[in-house]
Amino acid sequence: MRLLRLSLVGLLLGLAFVRPAGAKVFDAASFTLPNGLTVVVVENHRAPVVTQMIWYRVGAADEVAGKSGLAHFLEHLMFKGTETAKAGEFSAVVAENGGTENAFTSRDYTGYWQTVAKDRLETVMRYEADRMQHIVLTDDVVYPERDVIVEERRQRIDANPSSQLDEAMMAALFQNHRYGVPIIGWQHEMEGLTTADALAFYRKWYGPDNAILVIGGDVTVDEVKPLVEKYYGPLVPVGVPAERVRVLEPPPTAARTVTLKSPQVAEPQWYRAYLLPHRKDLAEGDLEALQLLSEILGGSATSRLYKSLVVDQGLATSAGAYDRSDALDYPTFHLAAAPRQGVELATVEQAMQAEIDKLVQGGVTEEELRLAKDRLQASAVFARDEPSTGPHVIGAAMATGETLEHIQSWPERVEAVTVEQVNALLREFLKPERSVTGYLLPQEPS
Amino acid sequence: MRLLRLSLVGLLLGLAFVRPAGAKVFDAASFTLPNGLTVVVVENHRAPVVTQMIWYRVGAADEVAGKSGLAHFLEHLMFKGTETAKAGEFSAVVAENGGTENAFTSRDYTGYWQTVAKDRLETVMRYEADRMQHIVLTDDVVYPERDVIVEERRQRIDANPSSQLDEAMMAALFQNHRYGVPIIGWQHEMEGLTTADALAFYRKWYGPDNAILVIGGDVTVDEVKPLVEKYYGPLVPVGVPAERVRVLEPPPTAARTVTLKSPQVAEPQWYRAYLLPHRKDLAEGDLEALQLLSEILGGSATSRLYKSLVVDQGLATSAGAYDRSDALDYPTFHLAAAPRQGVELATVEQAMQAEIDKLVQGGVTEEELRLAKDRLQASAVFARDEPSTGPHVIGAAMATGETLEHIQSWPERVEAVTVEQVNALLREFLKPERSVTGYLLPQEPS
Repeated sequence: MRLLRLSLVGLLLGLAFVRPAGAKVFDAASFTLPNGLTVVVVENHRAPVVTQMIWYRVGAADEVAGKSGLAHFLEHLMFKGTETAKAGEFSAVVAENGGTENAFTSRDYTGYWQTVAKDRLETVMRYEADRMQHIVLTDDVVYPERDVIVEERRQRIDANPSSQLDEAMMAALFQNHRYGVPIIGWQHEMEGLTTADALAFYRKWYGPDNAILVIGGDVTVDEVKPLVEKYYGPLVPVGVPAERVRVLEPPPTAARTVTLKSPQVAEPQWYRAYLLPHRKDLAEGDLEALQLLSEILGGSATSRLYKSLVVDQGLATSAGAYDRSDALDYPTFHLAAAPRQGVELATVEQAMQAEIDKLVQGGVTEEELRLAKDRLQASAVFARDEPSTGPHVIGAAMATGETLEHIQSWPERVEAVTVEQVNALLREFLKPERSVTGYLLPQEPS
Repeated sequence: MRLLRLSLVGLLLGLAFVRPAGAKVFDAASFTLPNGLTVVVVENHRAPVVTQMIWYRVGAADEVAGKSGLAHFLEHLMFKGTETAKAGEFSAVVAENGGTENAFTSRDYTGYWQTVAKDRLETVMRYEADRMQHIVLTDDVVYPERDVIVEERRQRIDANPSSQLDEAMMAALFQNHRYGVPIIGWQHEMEGLTTADALAFYRKWYGPDNAILVIGGDVTVDEVKPLVEKYYGPLVPVGVPAERVRVLEPPPTAARTVTLKSPQVAEPQWYRAYLLPHRKDLAEGDLEALQLLSEILGGSATSRLYKSLVVDQGLATSAGAYDRSDALDYPTFHLAAAPRQGVELATVEQAMQAEIDKLVQGGVTEEELRLAKDRLQASAVFARDEPSTGPHVIGAAMATGETLEHIQSWPERVEAVTVEQVNALLREFLKPERSVTGYLLPQEPS
C-alpha cells in the first residue's frame, strides 16, 4: 500500500505533526480562478523540482451515518482512471518520470500530490485536473479495491492493539460528532460501500470550488498561472456550501476510560485525550496557546513530562504530549506514557496525573513559555528546508478554513501568547470530564 | 408535564419493565385495513372501560444526525391541534369525559393512549385518527413547546446526576448506533429543531401503514371494526419502508468506564451495561434466556445479587439486574448496586464482579432456572388484571417487529429455555469488552 494517510493513529505512533510556519518562511502568493479554485504558489528555488498538491475540503467527518470509510475509499478510487486515462496510468507516468506521489485522507480533508522535475509539472497537472471531474468507476474496478481497503483496515487497526485502543478512545471521546468514527471506517460499513456511494460522494464534493491547488518549488506565479488556467480553468463548480455543517458535541459531563487487553501487547501503555471546545468557541490565540502547552509538556527531552517521569523518577521509557490543533471542529490534547519494565501502569498514571495537577495548580512559567516559543519558531524556520513542507502546511490549513494571511501570521500569533492565556486555557480544559483515559494491557492467559 | 415517557432513565430509576405475556393471558385478535393499519383488539371485560393506544413504528433512533429529540418533540406537538381540532381540545375532551391519557417516546416507537368509558371510544378514536395525518403546526405554537422540552431536559437529565451518567454510559456503549443518543435529545440540537423539521418527520413516519392500533377492554372485534374503518379507513398510506434501516455497531474491543461526580450526589452508585449482539444475530430463545438471566440475578429478594451483596455480605443497600430485551436492534443487560453507608464503591464493585465471575465459571442451575421461569410466567398471569397492560405489551412488541403470534407464544418460549442456553449466552456476552461501567460519585468540595 503506497498511500500514506494522516490519522490520529499515525500521530499516536509518533509521526510528527508539521507545524504551520509563517510569512517569513514561505514565499506564498495566491489567486482564485473564476470557477472557484483557490491556487497557492509557494516559491522555493533550492532545487529544480516542483510539488503539486490538490486539497479537497472533504474528509471522513463529512461522511453520513452508515457510510464510514467512504472518503478514504474514494481516495483509492481516484487512481482508477478517467474518461481518457487508464487505471494506474497517472501513477505510472509519475514513476516513469522519476517523480513521487502520494495521497491521504484525514477527518477534514483529502489530498493528492506529486513531486516531479520542474519541466514535468504540466504533465502531472493535466492528469490531476482530469481526475477532478472525469473519473470512471465500474464495479469490476471498485469492488476489488474495496477488498484492498478492508485488508488495509485489518493490517492497520485490527492487527494493531494501540490502533484499536485509539479507535475506541475516539469513539468514547466524541459522543455525537463524527470525529468519533475512524477515518478508515468501521469494517462492516466499508464492506457495504458501493460504486454508487463513491460516485455520489465524488460528485458532491470534488470540484474546483471545493479544492485548493498548492504548487510549491522552483516555479513562479507567472509560470504557473497559464498552466492552471489551461487545465483547471475548464472545470465546472459543484456548488458546495461555503460552510461545512457538522453536528456538535454535547457538553462533556463524565470522565471516561477505555481498557484494551490483547495477547499482541508486549508492554503496557497509558494514554489520555482531552476534548477542547469547538474551534469557533475558542478565543483568539487559544490554538497557539495549546500548541505551546504541548511543547512545554511534551515537545522535547527537557519538557516537563519526559524530565519528570523518564529522567527524574525513572518510571517511564517515554512520556509526552501533543495536540491536534489542526481540527476543523474540535481540537484535542493528548498525553501518552509507557512504563519502564517492572513499573505498574497505575504508578505511571499517578505520576502523570500528579504532573497535570501541578500544572493546573501552578501553571506554566514565563521561562517555559519563552523556550517553547523559541522551539516552535525554530521549527518554522526549519520547515523552509523541505520543499514539500510549505505546500503541506498551507494546504492543510486552508482546507480547514484558514486564510493564507492567517497562516502567514502564525509566528506573530505564537509570540503574542501570554502565560496567563496558557494557564487559563489549561485550567479550563484539563478537566476530568473532558477526558478519556486509555489503558493498553497485555492479555493474561486465561 | 403530564406526559410519561419510557426511557432507560426510568428503568434505572427502578421503573419496572412490563414483561410480554402470552396467549393464555390476552384474548387478542387482529386485522389489517386496506391502508395498512394493523389493528389489534384485546378483550377484557372486567370493567366497562376501554383503552385506545396508537403506536407508530418510529422512535428517537430513527432521527438523523443533528436532529436529536425530534421524535419526542413531535410527540408533544401532536397535542397542538389539527385542521379541525383546536390545540388542547383532544386532551380537554378526554378529561371532561373522565378519561385519562398519555403519550411516550422510546428509541424504537412512539405511542399515544386514552382510557375512557366504553361508550366514549368513538369520540377518542375520531380525534386520534384525525391527528394521524392532519395536524397543523405554526411557529407560534412550535417554538414555545420547544422551550418546554428543553426545560423538561433540564429537569430530567441536567438536574439529575444518575440520568446524566446514564446518558454518558449509553453514549460510550454505542459507538455508532443512535441508541447512544438520548431520547430527549442533546440540548444544543433540541434548541435548533424547527417547525419544518417536525412536519417533515411527521409526514415521513406518521401514517396508517406505519402504525398499530390496539384497542383493549370491554369491547369485541365486531364492535370495534366498524368504528376503526369509519375513522382510520380514509387515511392515506405514507409508504414507509417495511424494514427500518439503521447503522450497526462495530464489534466491541475495549472495556469502558464512565465516572460522573456531582455535588448533587448524596450516595455513590455503581452501574454496568453490557451490549448484546444485534437481535438479528441472536439465536431462537436468546432473548428469553436473557430475561431469565435478569430474573435469576436480579429479579427478586432471593436473586443472586441481592442475596449475596445485600443479605449475606451486607455491603450494599441494593443490587440488581435487568435487561432491555425489547430493543428493535441491540438488547442490553444491566447491573446496578448501591453501597451501604461506609462501604467503598470499589468494594461493592469487587463483590459484583465476583458474582459475575462465579456466574461465568459456574453457570446458573436447573433450580434457579425453574424458579425464574415460574416467576416470569406468574407475572404474565398477573398482567391480565390490569386492562392497560395487554395493549401496552402487544403494542410495544408489534412496534418492534414482533407478530401477534410470536407475542402469544412467549410463555412457551420461556418454558423451552435450557440451562445450557442461558449459560452459553452469558459466557458469550458477559465479557469486559462488551461493557461500560458507570460510577456515580459525590463531588468533593474543591
